[in-house]
Amino acid sequence: MSSPILLSQRSHQARDLPISFLMQQAVENRDCLSLAAGLVDPDTLPVNVTKEVVARVLATKESGNRALQYGTTPGSEALREQLLKHFCKLEGLPESQTSVSAEQIICTTGSQQLLSITSEILLNPGDICMVAGPTYFVFAGNLVGVGARPITVRTDEQGMDPQALDLALADLNAAGQLDLVKLIYVVSYYDNPSGVCVSAERRKAIVDVAKKWSRNHRIMVLEDAAYRELHYDGPELPSLWSYDDTQSYVIYTQTFSKTVSPGIRVGFGIVPQELVAPICERKGNEDFGSANFNQAIIQEVLSDGLYAEHLEKVKASYRRKRDAMLEAADQYFSDLDGVSWVHPHGGLYVWMSLPKEVVTDFRSPLFQEAVNKGVMYVPGSFAYAGLEMPPNHQMRLSYGVLDPAGINEGMRRLAESVRVVLR
Amino acid sequence: MSSPILLSQRSHQARDLPISFLMQQAVENRDCLSLAAGLVDPDTLPVNVTKEVVARVLATKESGNRALQYGTTPGSEALREQLLKHFCKLEGLPESQTSVSAEQIICTTGSQQLLSITSEILLNPGDICMVAGPTYFVFAGNLVGVGARPITVRTDEQGMDPQALDLALADLNAAGQLDLVKLIYVVSYYDNPSGVCVSAERRKAIVDVAKKWSRNHRIMVLEDAAYRELHYDGPELPSLWSYDDTQSYVIYTQTFSKTVSPGIRVGFGIVPQELVAPICERKGNEDFGSANFNQAIIQEVLSDGLYAEHLEKVKASYRRKRDAMLEAADQYFSDLDGVSWVHPHGGLYVWMSLPKEVVTDFRSPLFQEAVNKGVMYVPGSFAYAGLEMPPNHQMRLSYGVLDPAGINEGMRRLAESVRVVLR
Repeated sequence: MSSPILLSQRSHQARDLPISFLMQQAVENRDCLSLAAGLVDPDTLPVNVTKEVVARVLATKESGNRALQYGTTPGSEALREQLLKHFCKLEGLPESQTSVSAEQIICTTGSQQLLSITSEILLNPGDICMVAGPTYFVFAGNLVGVGARPITVRTDEQGMDPQALDLALADLNAAGQLDLVKLIYVVSYYDNPSGVCVSAERRKAIVDVAKKWSRNHRIMVLEDAAYRELHYDGPELPSLWSYDDTQSYVIYTQTFSKTVSPGIRVGFGIVPQELVAPICERKGNEDFGSANFNQAIIQEVLSDGLYAEHLEKVKASYRRKRDAMLEAADQYFSDLDGVSWVHPHGGLYVWMSLPKEVVTDFRSPLFQEAVNKGVMYVPGSFAYAGLEMPPNHQMRLSYGVLDPAGINEGMRRLAESVRVVLR
Repeated sequence: MSSPILLSQRSHQARDLPISFLMQQAVENRDCLSLAAGLVDPDTLPVNVTKEVVARVLATKESGNRALQYGTTPGSEALREQLLKHFCKLEGLPESQTSVSAEQIICTTGSQQLLSITSEILLNPGDICMVAGPTYFVFAGNLVGVGARPITVRTDEQGMDPQALDLALADLNAAGQLDLVKLIYVVSYYDNPSGVCVSAERRKAIVDVAKKWSRNHRIMVLEDAAYRELHYDGPELPSLWSYDDTQSYVIYTQTFSKTVSPGIRVGFGIVPQELVAPICERKGNEDFGSANFNQAIIQEVLSDGLYAEHLEKVKASYRRKRDAMLEAADQYFSDLDGVSWVHPHGGLYVWMSLPKEVVTDFRSPLFQEAVNKGVMYVPGSFAYAGLEMPPNHQMRLSYGVLDPAGINEGMRRLAESVRVVLR
């Protein structure tokens, strides 16, 4: 027998991620209708667009070589220039009026890599990150992985409540712990899992609270805008980033995984000038640059009308599917007392709350009943970070993968399951 | 003025990587002939192969969708099956005779990501990793990044000396530090920077030393086989991995960055069964899976004769360029007393030692003279980890980028520069 392998402290911290369990559940229940998977709509995956764009990237030996050679750690200059233009357009800013430069843009393997790197470079064990409740569970895993402590801030259908955030920071200050607070994490558009979009007033207010409590050191806001461009209706809001006129408090992240392809997996960040070097140093250690070929593909997609055209298609498809889910919720759940859900204006998720006595976790009778009836969801308790007793009566329902008929049938089965448990 | 951003302890540790400085030097001296860059041969980048293979991957909506959707954290099953076959072929093992399974294969963003993840999951601050002298400087950066201590083991033209390794571990044991030794890092084929290939006897011996000193815990061998398939002449040796019949001491890493394309950046590892979960958990935190599209490309490249054919072309080109560099070394350096170099049988590098009094670092008169004459190299001192006074009279010379005429001219300029300094 070999002697045991000793894992690092960090590795032990990281042991408890729900995503592997979720994937295993999905594999074991392949015939279930999945309202769980966060995958993107297979119908809208850009097979033809990618064909066209790759042909352009590889059209000449010169352009092909550029794409197939090593790139640099922060990513291709040409793409970063393109991303700056793209971002300014989203913000409704003329490029000439913004002082942000392409140097502050860093390309990553999905936006996830930037969430992970940000945790690595800012958080020591014991440091505090303020999060919404519920929040994105993979980022909660990043916090656990670096030994940081998430503190949940009251959150409602307008997003994280800045007054609650302010009070929580005041309490931490009174307890002598303000020096530990390094980060406020906000999924600003159509949150995963809650579907909530932070309201315009709260965007400014959250940034202001970060500034207010930045005393001995700066409290950074990590703005996760992964779902920003999956907008279906309602107002299109400027980022939290745009409310920070000093461009020094907000780390902004976005990705083309949802709008183009998660298999290509190009994300990016816009970061304060002084974080460029530490982020690149960390990324240099991890992979010294994401795949250059993929960056060339996204650059080409963005360079003409292809992107806008494809995005419209994607949005139209998701809008239909969101509507199908909301209609099915009305159809099957509205007569159930104590059931409520959030109406999302974008993104991929509907967040549903059941009566408090209906437990939703993997070990619950409801989950078992749902699997028996052939439908899966993500238990809401996964999405609370740092709470001893997280709410356990909620579900994340995704309309990403199924078609409208499948969504309706999935919702019907789920409502049936709830009825069985309530009986 | 904003208050200062506090970086994590880890970020401070990571601040001193030479790669950014090297890249900056390259950017600032674009008209220099580069014997420094570790880029791959642009002439052999597989523009047409990639075109052909992408067309196949995207041929049907179904196969295209598979490639453009999210994959799983360890990578596509189909690719991992393919990689198992590929690896068995390299080892000369019939697949039926190996007990390693595709489950033990993990796909990464280049092999670099697996080097980084291995450091993360095995090393606590203060832990020890035994390394060759010289060794791969990016991995040395990973060690510094996690706060681990590299200890350099005597290394010669046969690679890391197992007797010296054994003695070093005996010394550490005597000093009560054996419990801190977690890892032995070996670039087993045509080392970056030294070009050295670990000899057959030493392969077995290094694994045996790891086993011998694995008392309270297992000392793992991290085998970096990035250059394995860039073999030009001499024997083709089996891996260190193959000498561990328990399949529990060696973490084996390889990449298609050198043999196919660094812009596609698909690497992989073969790891002991019990490390699959910790590695996937860490990778799940970092990016929950490298780009699926790229994995589909590599799978397709490997699936028929395309890979073998392309590899032959790549090797023929590098072999010519290696020969050009060795001939130029003979031509321009052989009359210089105290200059010697290693004859590599594969890989991308010639390691050259100058007389001890000729300093080669960035601040040296030689480096300045070389830049003035229009040639760049990588100073050898970067490649020593954990030594207080690293040797400072060596150079890593790469024949990756230039053509044979450029290599000859670069070597001529370099020899001229050495003569100027020696005068």
